Amino acid sequence: MLNNNLLEGPLYTDFYQLTMAQLYYEQQMHETPARFEHFFRSYPDYGEHQAGYCIQAGTNWFLNWLEGLEFSSESLEKLRRHKNSSGEKIFSDKFLNWLSSQNIADRLTVEAIPEGRVVHPTVPLTVVEGPLALAQLVETALLNQLNYQVLIATRAARVSQAGRGNLLLEFGLRRAHDRGGHAGARAALIGGADFSSNTGLSYRYNLPPKGTHAHSMIQAYIARGKTELEAFRDFASLYPDSCVLLVDTIDTLQSGLPNAIKVFDELKKQGHQPLGIRLDSGDLAHLAVRSARILNDAGHEDVNIVLSNQLDEQVLRQIIEQIEEEAPEYNLESENIIDRLVYGVGTRLITSAGDSSLSGVYKLVALEKEGSPQPVLKISENPGKIPTPGHKKIWRIYDERGRATADLIGQPGEEIQTDETVEICHPFRHHASRRLRGEEISEIELLHEPFLKSGERLRHFNLEEARQRRREDLARLDPGVKRIMNPHYYHVSLTRKMRQEKQELINSIGMSSKQEEGF
Amino acid sequence: MLNNNLLEGPLYTDFYQLTMAQLYYEQQMHETPARFEHFFRSYPDYGEHQAGYCIQAGTNWFLNWLEGLEFSSESLEKLRRHKNSSGEKIFSDKFLNWLSSQNIADRLTVEAIPEGRVVHPTVPLTVVEGPLALAQLVETALLNQLNYQVLIATRAARVSQAGRGNLLLEFGLRRAHDRGGHAGARAALIGGADFSSNTGLSYRYNLPPKGTHAHSMIQAYIARGKTELEAFRDFASLYPDSCVLLVDTIDTLQSGLPNAIKVFDELKKQGHQPLGIRLDSGDLAHLAVRSARILNDAGHEDVNIVLSNQLDEQVLRQIIEQIEEEAPEYNLESENIIDRLVYGVGTRLITSAGDSSLSGVYKLVALEKEGSPQPVLKISENPGKIPTPGHKKIWRIYDERGRATADLIGQPGEEIQTDETVEICHPFRHHASRRLRGEEISEIELLHEPFLKSGERLRHFNLEEARQRRREDLARLDPGVKRIMNPHYYHVSLTRKMRQEKQELINSIGMSSKQEEGF
Repeated sequence: MLNNNLLEGPLYTDFYQLTMAQLYYEQQMHETPARFEHFFRSYPDYGEHQAGYCIQAGTNWFLNWLEGLEFSSESLEKLRRHKNSSGEKIFSDKFLNWLSSQNIADRLTVEAIPEGRVVHPTVPLTVVEGPLALAQLVETALLNQLNYQVLIATRAARVSQAGRGNLLLEFGLRRAHDRGGHAGARAALIGGADFSSNTGLSYRYNLPPKGTHAHSMIQAYIARGKTELEAFRDFASLYPDSCVLLVDTIDTLQSGLPNAIKVFDELKKQGHQPLGIRLDSGDLAHLAVRSARILNDAGHEDVNIVLSNQLDEQVLRQIIEQIEEEAPEYNLESENIIDRLVYGVGTRLITSAGDSSLSGVYKLVALEKEGSPQPVLKISENPGKIPTPGHKKIWRIYDERGRATADLIGQPGEEIQTDETVEICHPFRHHASRRLRGEEISEIELLHEPFLKSGERLRHFNLEEARQRRREDLARLDPGVKRIMNPHYYHVSLTRKMRQEKQELINSIGMSSKQEEGF
Repeated sequence: MLNNNLLEGPLYTDFYQLTMAQLYYEQQMHETPARFEHFFRSYPDYGEHQAGYCIQAGTNWFLNWLEGLEFSSESLEKLRRHKNSSGEKIFSDKFLNWLSSQNIADRLTVEAIPEGRVVHPTVPLTVVEGPLALAQLVETALLNQLNYQVLIATRAARVSQAGRGNLLLEFGLRRAHDRGGHAGARAALIGGADFSSNTGLSYRYNLPPKGTHAHSMIQAYIARGKTELEAFRDFASLYPDSCVLLVDTIDTLQSGLPNAIKVFDELKKQGHQPLGIRLDSGDLAHLAVRSARILNDAGHEDVNIVLSNQLDEQVLRQIIEQIEEEAPEYNLESENIIDRLVYGVGTRLITSAGDSSLSGVYKLVALEKEGSPQPVLKISENPGKIPTPGHKKIWRIYDERGRATADLIGQPGEEIQTDETVEICHPFRHHASRRLRGEEISEIELLHEPFLKSGERLRHFNLEEARQRRREDLARLDPGVKRIMNPHYYHVSLTRKMRQEKQELINSIGMSSKQEEGF
């Protein structure tokens, strides 16, 4: 992109962050220590189905952006020249000098739940602390990067789950939202995709990019007076050990599959193992069964069947169900077919079709006053929308089966123990609480880790570690919470102390009890 | 982003483009002149409502990408080192040397329908001609960039239309799909948004970015022991000529609005014109009516009312409808309220909520054989999905009222005249055709313009010109086609000659007549 420094630097922001920063500067509030938290309000809801958990993702790219943050001379010039309707400069030189002299990454502290972990609504995923004007300034780019990656990592986990953990390929770049496709592929690789067709992005993570070939390859051969068989043969001869043939350009069962089998036979004679066929149109479940029958009869029982075309978690569930029903009619074990399926998932994953955004927000929760941090409350008529104010500690509690049973938000000074009873309170309903006895608790862990302090990156990202965290967290999540449709509710609770402080703060601001109790 | 050259260069692609390019190279087909066309199959369908037209966008960014395309040493190294499962290199040095020696932009010709124009399904929006391997290679980045911008420009046009052309601000960066938010803001500015909060992107187009302030500003003041009124006053004093106050942090009618009026009174005394209030929660229509009443009573009849919070075309229609119903109860003319509304539209515009992708494809339609271009057919069981093969000419025909009545696809040598009868045929149904008599035709125009030839950019992008094209095209579009829900069908037709050639090609490939007639 031309003028990339305008789009990628500190002007990668909503304008009001800059006008507010100047107000804070003018009012001498700009250096006041502040705490902001990123969290989402509710799980993605795709209409016919909805998520019962999310997967954390995006932290490292946000930190990369933050680390490289500086005002280019062009950016500063644009701000300097910006005039209001009366022809007066919007930004004072004094303010711009201060702003551009700040090494923003050095002045902010970031802690977060590591990428790949299972996360839930209202729990702070990322916490930014630092001078009010600077911590506010990074809001837009933070939300832009983190909301989307959490959204896609979550969707990938669901698709992988619906596909029973079979090989999952991310194929969405052509329908992704412009360059967002790169972040989307990254998030998909964290959340559940094994590989991606996005070449640059895959190489960046030292993964081999994946793909087969397009219909246009067959068409090009035909237009030049050659045949589908010749196209397959040339392709196989060039890529004998990674040969997946797209069989639906002319007619899957009449042309593509017989031709593919001829080529697979030839490959085998030359000592190569054919990798697979790809089905990209028609009734994928039915064609998978028919193809498996034909491939088996030809002695190609090991050949994978790659499915693509508008797949998502619901489509995969239905395909598997149909294969289970149809397989016996062709004298096949359904598992023989299902186990060799590979999913190429594009549009519906990378754009999170059905719910194309995460309801993630970045809220000011504490601000220093006379040397001590004051909790800040965001009032709402809907008590579920009032964030928990102030500094906090987040624990995840595992039950006696080793399953995560609740995330608990407490005050910084609080401690909880596995051998003691822990009271967990509903975030806003009075008197609603639950007691977990010591013997019901197998483990308690703190969810937040430090990521950035005084300009120093404290953790380095490793894709395989993030995936391992995702696999472990999903294994410890209740199957009811993981359900693809109508998942069971996961508890995010407050300690009694935190619940009381929140209530006192609400009372002090003078909200009517009607508003508190409503909902 | 780190390693940007992997993500932004020629590896901004699906992997199979590279393996296919190598096949073409090995088979000496890589230099064969080819023609690819970008078109979409159907209008976005948002579920409860659907588009009856789209707006072309994205061409210039695609061309910028193409112009800067070169293999970095890192990109080449990644390709060189890529090995298959047997440890052998996937790409030969010979192929990589050829590939990296190509100045891709110099070798491709691009023609397109200019950005901002109204466009319809199956009509080629962008045409790329050049050597098969190179024209194929750019597919993914082209689709990634063009599909998304058309999607968002279209949505912005609809939102603007539903908002009766009032000032429309694009506020979506925080919920956009990572860096895709920049392309989305650009497309929104082409399609219907007047301004954007995206600061870098706005400056790039020499537009002032827009915004108000956040709830957090009021909260920060309160946490420091100050009041909403003081926050408003300080903000107004810093930005007296562009002062829009967000009035719903505490309580819109009890606190925000009375405080805003005090500050507006002060501004007026100082000779400034207060700009507006912003409503971001609650029943926006009701609060707009109540606010207008209170503002008018205080003598602030010129103050705008900015609405934000999950707006889209359906929500805007309902808000306007409700204002029309409620205004008289407060002794107001509804127009007095509606005319001063400004819309801040975020998430649902920039992610195209409801239909988050455009069904845009890039198809090989012609390939040279023995020195002359051969039309290439992509077969499908669904005749509506068979693209029109070969080189072509696209006209738009305007009826006697000056309204666009059909887009017509003909062969390169064909000519049509405004004073002669023009026959327009259904793209695949035999015998379905319509005759437009000379007196029914007021104008015929060719839609395609040349954009790139031999490395030379033939048109330069100007945002205001693109917006002007959009306004003119929408003014010439039938109101029925523009309808927000259940729009009337716009005709995309073939000349009889084109229809015949397509049918002959289908017959020659031997599709059964059952398939042709099906659907």
